[in-house]
Amino acid sequence: MPLMLPDLDTLNARLRDGATSRAQIVEQAAARAATPAAEAVFLHRTFEAAAQVARAADAASRAGKALHPLAGLPVSVKDLYDVAGEVTRAASLVRADAAPAAADAPVVARLRAAGAALVGRTNMTEFAFSGVGINPHYGTPANPAGGGPARIPGGSSSGAAVSVALGLAVAALGSDTGGSIRIPAALCGITGFKPTARRVPLAGAFPLSYTLDTACAMARTVGDCIAVDSVIADSAVLPRVTDPAATRLAIPRQLLLDDLDPVVARAFDRALGRLSAAGVRLEHVDLPELGELAALNAHGGFSAAEAYAIHRHLLAARRDRYDARVASRIDRGAGVSAADYIDLGRARLDWIARMEARLAGFDAVVCPTVPMVAPEIAPLRTDDAHFFRVNALLLRNTSAFNFFDGCSLSMPCHAPDELPVGLMLSHGPMRDAALLGTALALERIVQPVVQPSARDD
Amino acid sequence: MPLMLPDLDTLNARLRDGATSRAQIVEQAAARAATPAAEAVFLHRTFEAAAQVARAADAASRAGKALHPLAGLPVSVKDLYDVAGEVTRAASLVRADAAPAAADAPVVARLRAAGAALVGRTNMTEFAFSGVGINPHYGTPANPAGGGPARIPGGSSSGAAVSVALGLAVAALGSDTGGSIRIPAALCGITGFKPTARRVPLAGAFPLSYTLDTACAMARTVGDCIAVDSVIADSAVLPRVTDPAATRLAIPRQLLLDDLDPVVARAFDRALGRLSAAGVRLEHVDLPELGELAALNAHGGFSAAEAYAIHRHLLAARRDRYDARVASRIDRGAGVSAADYIDLGRARLDWIARMEARLAGFDAVVCPTVPMVAPEIAPLRTDDAHFFRVNALLLRNTSAFNFFDGCSLSMPCHAPDELPVGLMLSHGPMRDAALLGTALALERIVQPVVQPSARDD
Repeated sequence: MPLMLPDLDTLNARLRDGATSRAQIVEQAAARAATPAAEAVFLHRTFEAAAQVARAADAASRAGKALHPLAGLPVSVKDLYDVAGEVTRAASLVRADAAPAAADAPVVARLRAAGAALVGRTNMTEFAFSGVGINPHYGTPANPAGGGPARIPGGSSSGAAVSVALGLAVAALGSDTGGSIRIPAALCGITGFKPTARRVPLAGAFPLSYTLDTACAMARTVGDCIAVDSVIADSAVLPRVTDPAATRLAIPRQLLLDDLDPVVARAFDRALGRLSAAGVRLEHVDLPELGELAALNAHGGFSAAEAYAIHRHLLAARRDRYDARVASRIDRGAGVSAADYIDLGRARLDWIARMEARLAGFDAVVCPTVPMVAPEIAPLRTDDAHFFRVNALLLRNTSAFNFFDGCSLSMPCHAPDELPVGLMLSHGPMRDAALLGTALALERIVQPVVQPSARDD
Repeated sequence: MPLMLPDLDTLNARLRDGATSRAQIVEQAAARAATPAAEAVFLHRTFEAAAQVARAADAASRAGKALHPLAGLPVSVKDLYDVAGEVTRAASLVRADAAPAAADAPVVARLRAAGAALVGRTNMTEFAFSGVGINPHYGTPANPAGGGPARIPGGSSSGAAVSVALGLAVAALGSDTGGSIRIPAALCGITGFKPTARRVPLAGAFPLSYTLDTACAMARTVGDCIAVDSVIADSAVLPRVTDPAATRLAIPRQLLLDDLDPVVARAFDRALGRLSAAGVRLEHVDLPELGELAALNAHGGFSAAEAYAIHRHLLAARRDRYDARVASRIDRGAGVSAADYIDLGRARLDWIARMEARLAGFDAVVCPTVPMVAPEIAPLRTDDAHFFRVNALLLRNTSAFNFFDGCSLSMPCHAPDELPVGLMLSHGPMRDAALLGTALALERIVQPVVQPSARDD
């Protein structure tokens, strides 16, 4: 069964050829969204409105109007963004009776202005506060990969990743506070880009951490992620595509390559072998700063303190309606003093400066996005200790680059017969254009068989 | 006795005419700095090094080299900035045995690069944490104004203001967290400009509040403040000088005009009368946000929480060496939780947005900088309740615009026979160029008799 939709270039070429129409693409996505594989992906579906947008785009195209590459194509929206007239629940029960949003969040408005056909609100970890993607209220979307018992999609943007991996959308608007875009992208075999946070507005997004939240998206390819990023950041990223032989990647000696499961280790080594054969310079570097992260964030870091500030009144009034695991993570922020929180902010600035100095001259840090392949859902549902151990490991690599205030992209690097594995390229603040250029150049080396425009469909 | 030095334009014209030399100006300043009037202004004097810089600038000028208007002229530096090889005490005892600074703070380096002759480190409130300017360790510089018992200079940049008012420097580098530039400028009869904080780097400045601290300066005139601001911000401000008849000023109905002492009220009314006669549109506006400030900052605001984070370990170890009043203000931050601090940051963003909406279309808010003239020092030394009441009143108007993350300028508006009174023009974030243009246009209206280049000298 064909899964992912083709990338935007291929789709738009087929549209120009008349081989398909936007309306047809949306209708097919709607049909797939009604199959059991798509259970729990959407909390609210708007395929009918999307089909109207698609038909209007088809008509405009026939009339000779130049359209954005996303125009009339299906795009999903994570449940934490305001969409005018809809309730922003952030996949919680406790906000189910909140007032409908008065206006679209700016990122939603920008997608709409580009012509995107919004197909619905995707499921997520309640309030985006875990990397696992299990939601006890609305169900957990199953990872499309793997033939046995259902595996987690990763989180918190769980439904977002599955919406792209199942071909229900060409791109999914999500968010990334500690890895919530890149973890599900890696576990579901798609591409996810977390830009430098300040580049994309967070207004109208239900917050988890004011310091770390990033509005961002996932899609099939690096090129598609760039197209969406340019829309939601409202500024065209101009990636400098680099010569692989002039590219220098840093392989960190600390933390990020620890405890890899064998599938991840094999896929990562294979990717490094291909990059090396293509002339990319791979250098093992000491990044002792990575070893400081556990102590710096010992009391839950920015997310716990900020989530506690956001939720404390609601949590006191209606704790019984929260996912108990989310509530327990929020509770960690209750004991944090202003002085400790202020110190953490200052320590972060110092940490960022030291990381930037160590990475001068490198095009990116390279590591696996997640040290494991997607684990099965069932044991995670029942065993809290297992859940928190897995959650910590899922977030370990990705969250380092949120702390760095950096930009970071996960792309698939597994073989067709393997469970999905993500290769992560990351750097510091505001290096987005350079990082995306590097990612464009390396994508075709890391994925020589499964060419973006020719697989699955 | 001549007091202030002429403004930079006048001084540079005299230098071009050969009527004086930079060396002579620095030598005269050094002589004045040795008089009883200048007692406690400097914590460390470097007039000999300054004279060398002045002589070198004179020689370079004779050789035909184009010089910055500040080149070879005396400039003072508040004791909280790093100067290579000197101890940054921030006028405390507790840091008296700290290691000397390894490098100049960027703002100091920029002044040096412009050619400024640095004449010494000026006295201040310990750790910059009051608006009064009394320092129990190093003495309190007397306000040059008024003939009776010594009056406070205002703080925290106490020595800075007196260094300019007494003609020991053409400009004084200080800082402003709640009014520490504008309060002493107003009470000493000079001009002080607090830019939008982010425009000027704070590296190498001993911090009081990470959120509110602003590196900035005072000088004789608006034009001189602009010249110094361009140097320390390392970007030329291009003020748009406005037509007075096209200028709209907002007179707030809330807080900022409450409880004015009669001298201040009279000077302010006279200034408004002159502005009105010149065609400036004066409109009374409701700014209810100003009424929210006391409740928002009930627990000491950003300064208490951040100062506590900065000082808590040192304060625990060596409390006996602190100014007890400063220690008591820092202590207020001990009980603040991360959640309350985070909420304050979010409330501030919302407050700023509402203020900006109310002030749309206005060129500035106009009000007295400080509701009182400089009070006498003696009663403030002994009476804590009086001290804290005066301190709160001194900071009331100025601190509103630190909370606004705005830009704000105080210029003299008193008659020659009155104690100094400051007129404050203020607006929101990053409106510095427009505000300075307005201030340039209005300065000559507010001070029609005491023309900047013709008074006192």
